[in-house]
Amino acid sequence: MSGEAAPGTFAAGFKDGWYRELSSLWPGTGMSLKVEEVLFQGRSDFQGVAVVKTESFGTVLILDGAIQCTDRDEFSYQEMIAHLPACALGRAPRRALVVGGGDGGVLRELSRHASLEEIHIAEIDGMVIDTAKKFFPQMALGYSDPRVKVHVCDGIKFVQDAEAGYYDLIVVDSSDPVGPAEVLFQKPFFEALHRALAPGGIVCTQAESLWYHLEIIKSLAAMCAEVFVGGAVQYAFTTIPTYPSGQIGFMICTKASPDAVPLDARQPRQPVPATPAAQSYPPMRYYNHAVHAAAFVLPTFAQEALESSLTKF
Amino acid sequence: MSGEAAPGTFAAGFKDGWYRELSSLWPGTGMSLKVEEVLFQGRSDFQGVAVVKTESFGTVLILDGAIQCTDRDEFSYQEMIAHLPACALGRAPRRALVVGGGDGGVLRELSRHASLEEIHIAEIDGMVIDTAKKFFPQMALGYSDPRVKVHVCDGIKFVQDAEAGYYDLIVVDSSDPVGPAEVLFQKPFFEALHRALAPGGIVCTQAESLWYHLEIIKSLAAMCAEVFVGGAVQYAFTTIPTYPSGQIGFMICTKASPDAVPLDARQPRQPVPATPAAQSYPPMRYYNHAVHAAAFVLPTFAQEALESSLTKF
Repeated sequence: MSGEAAPGTFAAGFKDGWYRELSSLWPGTGMSLKVEEVLFQGRSDFQGVAVVKTESFGTVLILDGAIQCTDRDEFSYQEMIAHLPACALGRAPRRALVVGGGDGGVLRELSRHASLEEIHIAEIDGMVIDTAKKFFPQMALGYSDPRVKVHVCDGIKFVQDAEAGYYDLIVVDSSDPVGPAEVLFQKPFFEALHRALAPGGIVCTQAESLWYHLEIIKSLAAMCAEVFVGGAVQYAFTTIPTYPSGQIGFMICTKASPDAVPLDARQPRQPVPATPAAQSYPPMRYYNHAVHAAAFVLPTFAQEALESSLTKF
Repeated sequence: MSGEAAPGTFAAGFKDGWYRELSSLWPGTGMSLKVEEVLFQGRSDFQGVAVVKTESFGTVLILDGAIQCTDRDEFSYQEMIAHLPACALGRAPRRALVVGGGDGGVLRELSRHASLEEIHIAEIDGMVIDTAKKFFPQMALGYSDPRVKVHVCDGIKFVQDAEAGYYDLIVVDSSDPVGPAEVLFQKPFFEALHRALAPGGIVCTQAESLWYHLEIIKSLAAMCAEVFVGGAVQYAFTTIPTYPSGQIGFMICTKASPDAVPLDARQPRQPVPATPAAQSYPPMRYYNHAVHAAAFVLPTFAQEALESSLTKF
């Protein structure tokens, strides 16, 4: 190879033994990780896939140049995006769907919930699944649960084709709204999610950083409020060092139920699940009921920007 | 100059128009900011001082290579380290002391509290004060309050020499526990803080990141519990993109009062202060009473590590 590597690739950010994560989504700033070994570099039909071993964060998955998860801090994101909606539900969930989430971490967290009878995943990129199974066994163990059914397909089409009212719980574990995941931040997808949810059901989507993407979040919240009429739209966040700005948030939308008022997702209603008996399951390390409630408390600048779009309780 | 710049200096991290913040306190990882202009580089008797204009975080103060504050996100740290203790107090504070904090941001926040009659600051490095007044007017406006008295001196000696029981509130706005601030994390200093506090008074100290420095925090909490006998030792944190891992915490210690049970600092008791009439005062953008309570809710991994040292309520 010669010349400059293309922007938005692993090669563009890898220099002198360090990987620096640059993107138009966080201009003028970038997280760097010291790389001990490049374990894998490939390109699927959808994106660039890289796996590196780092000095301080263990093994790291990088898609189109963006850090997706690291051994050391992935538990924060995976636990929160799964248990915030699962524990907010008014009833123990029976059927769950993950859109994206090919690394398996959300599956691992959902599979802690004994009430679930079916856990579907619609991941567009089979290379992400294969990569997780090879390099991230502690996340990919979610795939070993017999309730999990894997669909390697377009997540939007999968949700549009789903039986109306089928899912109690949908987790959208997408990458950033550039590249293949862009459509996962748009109205047709949220209309399909709303349709696929049972009354009183909840969808929780990856929804960027309050510090870097307040305008994106504001637009997303306003769009969700148009779709989840009679239900609720709320926002929560978690801390995680290797995501831009050190935190990432979630849009949590509840579908109206004819026989109940909209749920306030700030209140956990389901117990914290026990660690499954399988020896390889790690204990939960981030989520608890106090963290659940606190995750919805926003700094004043974010509260003021979003309050007109979020549901008031 | 020739050869490699010394570690722990601005020059060591500045390359190709970017500043990368490296330190033994966060090995193998580093935040990078794109620099538009180097506004100042100097060396005081205590540390290297640099000021740069960045593409996305405005003007940035860097001491011994570590990012201290940026125009864009300093309000999070300054508001939280000042108002968490000020609003937790059982009575409106009359006398406050800032140790360190030469940039003036904590003074700005404390000066919002109308009940304060005296606000002392003991900053060891006059160059930091001069630099703030020149390059960070929105922080340095704290110095314009007539209740503020500036002492350019060793903070430990100042606290040791203070009248016993004089202060309702002490904020220790230190840099990291390497270099000049190392002693500000040690027992003799905390014994002096305890002595200088009035019964029921509170000290709030910069106390690093739960994600990167859990062992330092654990030792600090255990030491504080030895000093604040009969009082309380608690931990809270705030989000801030340009500090390592995207968050920073505070050790909040309350001195026992003979006529009251120890205060639980999680509960705000004083009103959120109004913005002073002076036109240059910005509105508060992070702290509110809900944020106050939520700041003490720790992720499970941190709660489990610290619970034996922190006060139970």
